[in-house]
Amino acid sequence: MLQECDRPIGVFDSGIGGLTVVQEITRLLPNEQIVYFGDTARVPYGTKSKESVIRFSRDNMNVLLRHNVKMVVVACNTSTSWALNILKREYAIPVIGVIEPGSRRAVAATRRKRIGVIATPSTVNSRKYEETILRMARGAKVFQKACPLFVPLVEEGWQEHRVTEAVAMEYLAAMKKNGVDTLILGCTHYPLLKTVLQKVMGRGVTLVDSAVETAHEVQNLLEKQKLMRQNQHPPKHQFLVSDEPEHFRVVAKRFLGHDLPHVQRVVF
Amino acid sequence: MLQECDRPIGVFDSGIGGLTVVQEITRLLPNEQIVYFGDTARVPYGTKSKESVIRFSRDNMNVLLRHNVKMVVVACNTSTSWALNILKREYAIPVIGVIEPGSRRAVAATRRKRIGVIATPSTVNSRKYEETILRMARGAKVFQKACPLFVPLVEEGWQEHRVTEAVAMEYLAAMKKNGVDTLILGCTHYPLLKTVLQKVMGRGVTLVDSAVETAHEVQNLLEKQKLMRQNQHPPKHQFLVSDEPEHFRVVAKRFLGHDLPHVQRVVF
Repeated sequence: MLQECDRPIGVFDSGIGGLTVVQEITRLLPNEQIVYFGDTARVPYGTKSKESVIRFSRDNMNVLLRHNVKMVVVACNTSTSWALNILKREYAIPVIGVIEPGSRRAVAATRRKRIGVIATPSTVNSRKYEETILRMARGAKVFQKACPLFVPLVEEGWQEHRVTEAVAMEYLAAMKKNGVDTLILGCTHYPLLKTVLQKVMGRGVTLVDSAVETAHEVQNLLEKQKLMRQNQHPPKHQFLVSDEPEHFRVVAKRFLGHDLPHVQRVVF
Repeated sequence: MLQECDRPIGVFDSGIGGLTVVQEITRLLPNEQIVYFGDTARVPYGTKSKESVIRFSRDNMNVLLRHNVKMVVVACNTSTSWALNILKREYAIPVIGVIEPGSRRAVAATRRKRIGVIATPSTVNSRKYEETILRMARGAKVFQKACPLFVPLVEEGWQEHRVTEAVAMEYLAAMKKNGVDTLILGCTHYPLLKTVLQKVMGRGVTLVDSAVETAHEVQNLLEKQKLMRQNQHPPKHQFLVSDEPEHFRVVAKRFLGHDLPHVQRVVF
């Protein structure tokens, strides 16, 4: 029988963006095995309501639990915003999100305590980043901006297109005027826009991608709970989606820079 | 008991775009009563696979049938592309889509038989417009282009924004070079971009919005099957969505130019 610690880590996202988190986990913890689930049939979550996001997040947890995971990373910022606390309460295994790690890193990085957050409309409405940052750094100023066009621009493959730069200039104008020195990329798609975002914000602004910090949090948790994988066979990752696998594969290559192994379709 | 002809007309769409079709039906047939269902929890369909679109379309039919509709209009181009023939086969009531009416109008309007179609990636992949137009006008040339950024641009409210114009210039460059004289707006969101599209394509190009033509097809069908509503009480339309109603209401106002009555949430 499988030892408890040898079970895989579950990661879910509304679609493909969570692969940026998978990449950082496998970089930091190359012996860990991952089961990824992307809810590509119902993507995006960022324009949907709290109730729908909570319902979808529960469904996603249940998909991963059928694969016998030892913990779950909620890689989607919108799911983390609305559902993380609920999932922690309802499920017996450890569940971590991306908002605490990203906020912690931003608080460590900021010099003038002026932190910007760009995210989906639903994440911005939840005010979860603001709440988390203010808990960690009283007196900080948090400036939020919903950027609904960034995800479709990334999915169109226009990461460094002049249109993307024009959109970023418009979305970020108030942030710049408000003098933020640290900008949290509060959606897993946004790290692919780093070049444009850095150009628009200027060299002096630190961009925080929560994927790296989330991977560290996974490491801490596994060490503390003695859940590090001991099996010495190379891990075999699994990728599951709720829509057709082929499109996922194509876009995944843009995210990871390399081909994915077999991608399977899951029916709820 | 309700007379058969006095039952409402069902209209479904992946989200909000189908309201452009509702508007034309109520304009042409003011005595008809409508039940609209927008699948806002799973929107958009245009980037999803055939299998998912068929499954969602069946779910939507079933929602409308619970409201005792006498016929159904599939207002979504992507649903029409993949699911119309299946729904016609599987359900006893009449079902009509938006692709035949739009194609018929384009064939009537074109002078040089060079017709462009802009639509979602999924509709373009289905090649349904091409097939339908060639059936109606042998020897016509059909030029298709997927425009995945148009829906998010409309939903952001940037209908006449310079970014939208830049995106349109890029998407439509090949159409213009190919000398199309008629352009089908193959997604119910696109009529909101008419001003920009006309500007980019030039005055000489006819834009075809299938909503008007679809309303005429509804009228023909009701007359032929003696299903015109006889009841002289003013109709009460119903609006149903699968996600939270409030956001739908806000965007609906942009589509209709006026407030919607009560919007109800449906759980599948």
